[in-house]
Amino acid sequence: MSVTAAAGFQAAGVAAGIKAGGARDVAVVVGVEGTIGAAVFTTSNAAAPPVALSRAHLEAGPNTRAVILNSGCANAGTGVIGAFVAKATAGWTAEALACPIEEVLVCSTGPIGTHLEPTSMERGVNRGLAGLAGSDRAARDAASAILTTDSVHKEAIATGGGFSVGGMAKGAGMVRPDMATMLAVITTDAAVDPVEMDGALREAVDGSFHGLNIDGCLSTNDTVIVMASGASGRLVSGDELAGPLTHVCRSLTLQMAADAEGASRVVRLLVTGAASAGDARRLGRSIADSVLVRSSFYGGDPNWGRILGALGAAPVVVDPSSVAVAYEGVLVAAEGLGRPHDEAALAARLHSDFTVQVVVGDGPGTYEVITTDLTPDYVRFNGERT
Amino acid sequence: MSVTAAAGFQAAGVAAGIKAGGARDVAVVVGVEGTIGAAVFTTSNAAAPPVALSRAHLEAGPNTRAVILNSGCANAGTGVIGAFVAKATAGWTAEALACPIEEVLVCSTGPIGTHLEPTSMERGVNRGLAGLAGSDRAARDAASAILTTDSVHKEAIATGGGFSVGGMAKGAGMVRPDMATMLAVITTDAAVDPVEMDGALREAVDGSFHGLNIDGCLSTNDTVIVMASGASGRLVSGDELAGPLTHVCRSLTLQMAADAEGASRVVRLLVTGAASAGDARRLGRSIADSVLVRSSFYGGDPNWGRILGALGAAPVVVDPSSVAVAYEGVLVAAEGLGRPHDEAALAARLHSDFTVQVVVGDGPGTYEVITTDLTPDYVRFNGERT
Repeated sequence: MSVTAAAGFQAAGVAAGIKAGGARDVAVVVGVEGTIGAAVFTTSNAAAPPVALSRAHLEAGPNTRAVILNSGCANAGTGVIGAFVAKATAGWTAEALACPIEEVLVCSTGPIGTHLEPTSMERGVNRGLAGLAGSDRAARDAASAILTTDSVHKEAIATGGGFSVGGMAKGAGMVRPDMATMLAVITTDAAVDPVEMDGALREAVDGSFHGLNIDGCLSTNDTVIVMASGASGRLVSGDELAGPLTHVCRSLTLQMAADAEGASRVVRLLVTGAASAGDARRLGRSIADSVLVRSSFYGGDPNWGRILGALGAAPVVVDPSSVAVAYEGVLVAAEGLGRPHDEAALAARLHSDFTVQVVVGDGPGTYEVITTDLTPDYVRFNGERT
Repeated sequence: MSVTAAAGFQAAGVAAGIKAGGARDVAVVVGVEGTIGAAVFTTSNAAAPPVALSRAHLEAGPNTRAVILNSGCANAGTGVIGAFVAKATAGWTAEALACPIEEVLVCSTGPIGTHLEPTSMERGVNRGLAGLAGSDRAARDAASAILTTDSVHKEAIATGGGFSVGGMAKGAGMVRPDMATMLAVITTDAAVDPVEMDGALREAVDGSFHGLNIDGCLSTNDTVIVMASGASGRLVSGDELAGPLTHVCRSLTLQMAADAEGASRVVRLLVTGAASAGDARRLGRSIADSVLVRSSFYGGDPNWGRILGALGAAPVVVDPSSVAVAYEGVLVAAEGLGRPHDEAALAARLHSDFTVQVVVGDGPGTYEVITTDLTPDYVRFNGERT
């Protein structure tokens, strides 16, 4: 249950020959006429051609009939040829749907630096549009077609208040060498103003995907798209949409973290007491970006000294004497100093997923980061020649 | 040959009981009366008490008779108790040398979050001052006393033009769990204006230690100190001093990279063609901070796609179509696109230390980063509970 849960949407996931072995590699999500879209794209200065195209299409107007997604090739580092393939993909889709090309968005994921074959994409678009259905099965096929080395497809829905929100996602930083990493498509049958939907999406992404930090590596292809068909007849505000949208995004985020290859533990890191939410985010990211901290997560070591070091390295001034750190609710440091605790009992609780709370003062700013441990398997996996 | 190579300096390295097993753990470097100092300290907002003390002492004036360094404990995350121990250490030294306390600097390195015993430090100061000598042996003892899990001591000298510069250093990011990582003391018998010496030190550090990026983790204790005795009678400008000072710092930097635990390759990463040196540095750091790039170094994989991704993530706009990447002089990408090359021949050259050149445009800005690969051993080592 994901992108077809909302009324007015059909999907398909087909094999187009991009991946070896006949695996599904092209997903198509199509809304009824009048469907609008909004998106959050990677901030990379080396954004891939499909990102540039989709960004331009949304700037032309919110109407968004279809999203075409492929796995097996990021179409990044591919220059003008890559731009041609992305545009041709949108063009074939627009022709088949009899809509302006600007109403088609394109996403690619997979290794950077290899070319996407236009013949494969044309085949994928044709097969996908021919196989469109509104069933759960079609949604699952689409969710499967965007995976790379993810071990499971990722779907989530939220219903209530007379409308539905459903989404699919793939990936996380470490999921494949060179991976241009995360994609998500979310659909809703709510009727909503495009500007309000854009705001609701940004709020949802801030509270979910943006808080996921696997390895601090920004991808050339990261894209989150929401489409609204209005087919429920229910008119909602951005605020009303933000709740279920955030729920779906958070569920997908947790599924991505749990599936991150090489990781042995998901860690929820909650920073509180910062002067602002922005400061809390910067501090949380500095902690989650630290390979020393994430190596200590792998060791199940409640190493608050490294967290203090990471706070000190952040572009936000923190008074060490106002820092407290708790692992699984057990206080290991307060006022910037270590605190006695039952080390054996705590160590036993750090063998699987755990939470870390970091209090940095008495301000109102809080932020939660979902991260994982850094493991020897991660390095081995990403050290393999592709 | 290091801190005693220049006339007017004596040193000692003694065991004071901070480390288990009777290893040397306190180093003392003392200059003749009138010796001046300058230093570059960590920019961490959680700087350790000895850093705060040394910074304050240099702000009071350039006169610097002695540096007391200990290993085995970073005296970080230790609050007012840590500040007391640092000040007491300087006080005992100043009393013995009959100089103002502001002429004594203090450095600590080792795990964060444990207390430094004042009785050990008093013993270290007494033994160190009693054992001062101007011999090579005394310099080597001092260089050994500041090591933690470094496998070898690190020394370098530069002579010529009627004066000498010698230095010792310890550490690199990964050298020990919680390590508050790099310390260096450099001495010269040149006579130099304190302000000019400060400028020369900053230039030397910029072209050496600041370009070393093992794991992107900023320490709470990083300190580089230079002391000038004037005992050679040779008056030099900051520009004259900068050359040999940079030579010594670069030699120590390469020794630190080669000794970084867990690393299997030292990688020299040269960024050229940026709009400015600052831009080149920001781009170089973004590449060296990327765990995906450094995992590919471990795999000996000339993975230019990840370098493109890291450039895109940097806070400097780079046009992907103007990017070229060469490993060991073999061009693997140009104009942002992959280039055919003899993959087997190149792979064979990436099994040990190698160079990566990244051209980002046609601007004048260049920067060299010395880094290492990220290895499973690094993660295992830093995942161990301390």
